[in-house]
Amino acid sequence: MSSSIWQFSKRAAALQSSAIREILKITELPHVISFAGGLPSPNTFPVEKIKQAVDTIMDSDEAFSALQYGPTEGYKPLREWVINLINQREKTKLTVDNVLIVTGSQQALDLIGKALIDEGTKILVETPTYLGGLQTFTQYEPEYVSIASDDQGLNPDLLSDEDAKSANFLYTIPNFQNPTGRRLSAERRKKLADKAIANNLLMIEDDPYGELDYQGHRLPSLISYAPTNTVYLGSFSKILAPGMRLGYVVGPADFIRKLVQLKQAADLHTPSYTQHIAYQVVKDGYLGDHIPKIRELYKKRCEFMLEQLAKYMPNTVRWTKPEGGMFIWVELPEHIDSTALLAIAVQNNVAFVPGETFFATNPRKNCLRLAFVTVPEDRIEQGIKTLAQLIK
Amino acid sequence: MSSSIWQFSKRAAALQSSAIREILKITELPHVISFAGGLPSPNTFPVEKIKQAVDTIMDSDEAFSALQYGPTEGYKPLREWVINLINQREKTKLTVDNVLIVTGSQQALDLIGKALIDEGTKILVETPTYLGGLQTFTQYEPEYVSIASDDQGLNPDLLSDEDAKSANFLYTIPNFQNPTGRRLSAERRKKLADKAIANNLLMIEDDPYGELDYQGHRLPSLISYAPTNTVYLGSFSKILAPGMRLGYVVGPADFIRKLVQLKQAADLHTPSYTQHIAYQVVKDGYLGDHIPKIRELYKKRCEFMLEQLAKYMPNTVRWTKPEGGMFIWVELPEHIDSTALLAIAVQNNVAFVPGETFFATNPRKNCLRLAFVTVPEDRIEQGIKTLAQLIK
Repeated sequence: MSSSIWQFSKRAAALQSSAIREILKITELPHVISFAGGLPSPNTFPVEKIKQAVDTIMDSDEAFSALQYGPTEGYKPLREWVINLINQREKTKLTVDNVLIVTGSQQALDLIGKALIDEGTKILVETPTYLGGLQTFTQYEPEYVSIASDDQGLNPDLLSDEDAKSANFLYTIPNFQNPTGRRLSAERRKKLADKAIANNLLMIEDDPYGELDYQGHRLPSLISYAPTNTVYLGSFSKILAPGMRLGYVVGPADFIRKLVQLKQAADLHTPSYTQHIAYQVVKDGYLGDHIPKIRELYKKRCEFMLEQLAKYMPNTVRWTKPEGGMFIWVELPEHIDSTALLAIAVQNNVAFVPGETFFATNPRKNCLRLAFVTVPEDRIEQGIKTLAQLIK
Repeated sequence: MSSSIWQFSKRAAALQSSAIREILKITELPHVISFAGGLPSPNTFPVEKIKQAVDTIMDSDEAFSALQYGPTEGYKPLREWVINLINQREKTKLTVDNVLIVTGSQQALDLIGKALIDEGTKILVETPTYLGGLQTFTQYEPEYVSIASDDQGLNPDLLSDEDAKSANFLYTIPNFQNPTGRRLSAERRKKLADKAIANNLLMIEDDPYGELDYQGHRLPSLISYAPTNTVYLGSFSKILAPGMRLGYVVGPADFIRKLVQLKQAADLHTPSYTQHIAYQVVKDGYLGDHIPKIRELYKKRCEFMLEQLAKYMPNTVRWTKPEGGMFIWVELPEHIDSTALLAIAVQNNVAFVPGETFFATNPRKNCLRLAFVTVPEDRIEQGIKTLAQLIK
């Protein structure tokens, strides 16, 4: 697309407005039972605690620094908090020079794409994978190689040494993956990390859902096994509030320095105001009480949806049984196209995200993603019942 | 720069850590009199008003939407407020489809670079111009053509029809420009807009300082003369608080739609939380009382610095006499290199930004930028006196 006045760049012209997104806009109407969103439940937002944090900041001289420009790297106390968390949890020995605060972890994906992808750069993605990651990387015109996954997550045996050596990085979401809800097994984490080390492969470990582990039994992250080969992305969106747009990148110091340069050009720095609030909220261990409440709510909703799937779906339909996170991945019989199904489902006031959008290469048409955390139980039952009838 | 584990993209490898930035880091120490920063005065931050706004939001159900994911285009009431402001002030007839809220107007520059620059795309910049604009555009590898400016700002007579026709856009800061403090005259605005219309040239009108007009006598913006040829960038950083990172883009609807797609990949959306706060602060006309106080403070500081320059500088030195904004541009005798002068000045506890960084092509070495709004009067006098002695 271009006009007589300007000409869009090649990368911008290649961006298509998504037909699926247009359909999903309809699903925001209140009478639609939407399993399409990726939103956390607003019932988990710590409104009172955030209000207290804001009052503390605004009643002191900290107000002036919270409202002023700040360093591109991020608010130092928040960076220190992040690195202490990672060092304790992952047994790493990283410093504040290994952390950059970003405007939501989506920004980290964009900065990483800018930093590492030229036209034709080979990158590895597990498949299926996060749609927003694919959209962002695609702007920089990489050549994708997809690595298949199964119920234990990405299969490192299917990653050849040749691909591992020639690719610039691997993008993976080991915990309660978007869209599948799968978790990479402990054994495979070790195997993947060993392979990365042996082949000098950089791993981009995207971990927005790691804390949403229903049993509270976290597996070590890839950065724990291979700290020099891993760039770890964390987020406050699912444990605090996404409207703050706060995430972080932890990685090798020279890599972080380059991201800082790119971030300066992208938005100077993440809002000081929200960084100060987040630090004030988390600094005294509040998340230790808060996160278990989110897990409990999400576990209950997930179990309920799994029950409804078992109750209503024909036995030709399969689905994942997540141990954490926000998503269930459904595989329909081969002949059903989930994008066509969506059009009919929306007419029946039910929505989901068709699976084909989550594939970098060779999209599978017979899959779909269900999100359960924002839908009340009676509507989950009604929605699954309707979907099952349409599939039959 | 690359490592054995990853290879930086061509655009990332080309980014240099700036020697000047390294020197300026030292100048953040409290004993240094720094005229280098581009920070607004924290005395102008409406702390009480923001606190009230936050309380109003957090005490109502609005808290949940302020903390949740939001639309990429921005918070609709804030977009409506912006477009009403522009329509009233500039006599345009634009709608909410012409507005995108961004994470500070630096992000607008990055999205515009992404949208409009391929390797070798010709773009026009007034010279000197905003360093952060140049850094951002340079990532996308344009071919720059510089248009000279004088005391009345960019000179449209020096913009050839050939360049106007072949360039993809012109980047300009008509009001109290960074770094010169100059304002484009009314006559030149009209002439430039006519030339843009005649040659199908897109103008990127960056206007962070427009409200900081000491006499409160605003000239019509370029978008007022040529709405279909102009993309206007506004900011809350200088009239509210930069730590919120809030700006906006106003332009043709099809251009805005493309920026929305790019912004979705860049950071999903600008923080809902800060957008809700800003709207709550500005919606009932608060800025009408607040902005005159900022103007008064800045005018006083500017006049004071101009007096000190007249008092201490040798008569071989020239400087601009801004009618608004935050910066004074100083021209030294041709033989003085301002970057070398900075190294000596810092040893004498005074800092500024050397002029050469503000040129896309053919940098001039004998200029420098002074910022006055955050420095108390006694320190302005002391700093200018020291600089004058070093120049002599």
